[in-house]
Amino acid sequence: MTDKHLQIGIIVFDGMTSLDALAPFEVLARTPNSTCHLVWKHCRPIKGDTGLIVTPSLSFDDATQLDVIMVPGGPGQNDLMADEELLGFLRKQAAGAQWVTSVCTGSLLLAAAGLLNGYKATSHWLSLDFLRLFPVEVVPERVVIDRNRVTGGGVTSGLDFAFVLLSLLRGDEAARTLQLLMEYDPAPPFRSGHPDVADVGTVDAVRQLAAGMLEKRRAVCLEAARILAQR
Amino acid sequence: MTDKHLQIGIIVFDGMTSLDALAPFEVLARTPNSTCHLVWKHCRPIKGDTGLIVTPSLSFDDATQLDVIMVPGGPGQNDLMADEELLGFLRKQAAGAQWVTSVCTGSLLLAAAGLLNGYKATSHWLSLDFLRLFPVEVVPERVVIDRNRVTGGGVTSGLDFAFVLLSLLRGDEAARTLQLLMEYDPAPPFRSGHPDVADVGTVDAVRQLAAGMLEKRRAVCLEAARILAQR
Repeated sequence: MTDKHLQIGIIVFDGMTSLDALAPFEVLARTPNSTCHLVWKHCRPIKGDTGLIVTPSLSFDDATQLDVIMVPGGPGQNDLMADEELLGFLRKQAAGAQWVTSVCTGSLLLAAAGLLNGYKATSHWLSLDFLRLFPVEVVPERVVIDRNRVTGGGVTSGLDFAFVLLSLLRGDEAARTLQLLMEYDPAPPFRSGHPDVADVGTVDAVRQLAAGMLEKRRAVCLEAARILAQR
Repeated sequence: MTDKHLQIGIIVFDGMTSLDALAPFEVLARTPNSTCHLVWKHCRPIKGDTGLIVTPSLSFDDATQLDVIMVPGGPGQNDLMADEELLGFLRKQAAGAQWVTSVCTGSLLLAAAGLLNGYKATSHWLSLDFLRLFPVEVVPERVVIDRNRVTGGGVTSGLDFAFVLLSLLRGDEAARTLQLLMEYDPAPPFRSGHPDVADVGTVDAVRQLAAGMLEKRRAVCLEAARILAQR
């Protein structure tokens, strides 16, 4: 399973939730016999939604066919739902890629590009209803695999997503080994990481915190779904 | 608990394991009423051990007293075990900081600076024996709190570490809320994230992979412990 050198591309953009991209990067960059890029329109520094500055290693123009493409999410995804330069790049790459993937609300960008039409997929729990605006079979799981689409839930699900993807790319033993090297034996201090287990007050607090951003997201998703339906 | 605006500083350096720093950054940068910096000698881009490029936001010279200081690990930590500019900065900040913390082999740097003398602390499972070379009470847990020292185990333990630290900084409800926002309800695909649960073959494979780096780490730790004993 290690024959072909794999080109892995993780999209980055201003206003992304940095960990959506960088937790999978940490895993996937350790894929045996591979090169892992941060990919954007240009290679100038990018600022995530918490102010973290990372520098892309590959521009759209310089990218040859990627074997794996991964799209992260975050508030900045809202501004890209009608960005033809990005959506066109994703469509072009997806046509020849072995795996087309996302973490968090990156699935909304894949959906806007039409790349999840008829596929099972997931997203951040707060945005599952927005993914349902597209012709996607929404499955509210942490990691969803449907043919060559692999999508992860919110933010930290990118770790589980990446180990699953690594096992698909290079086999279970490679993923098991890296899980041990990265000491991935999680012990969350609270039982509150999903609305099914968090108490109602905490769920309400998060909905409240995110309300303005979600209102905007609903509007751009409705518009993107409308445009997609006309393509 | 949200009265004082907190200055949080996460050290970054060439050859660090990027996620050691950036998973805690993602959590801690969302601490209510706080500013979270990536801190290094200069603010030019830093390259982690997988090639990820991040830009520090605060230089040692520009740093005023930090309330929280966090040191990550990774192969590049080996080269810093006798770096007086770094160790001196850590000592100076630790004297006035509210919390002195580390993830992964960042604890070896705190130990080299003498900042874990007489404290309980942890490290990456592969490096616990190296931490034992210092006058530290090594506790092989994922997150260890002793007075104002908080240390985390290998790489991904930085998430558990950060949510624990956030609860110490701003209370349990703040941590619970952020765990839900970041959908931190982990589901590792394999049961192999710690030597106690991984099969023997996987443990041997990881030891094999890391052997060269660990040999170097033992040597620099022995030397750093010798220097510390003479201070």
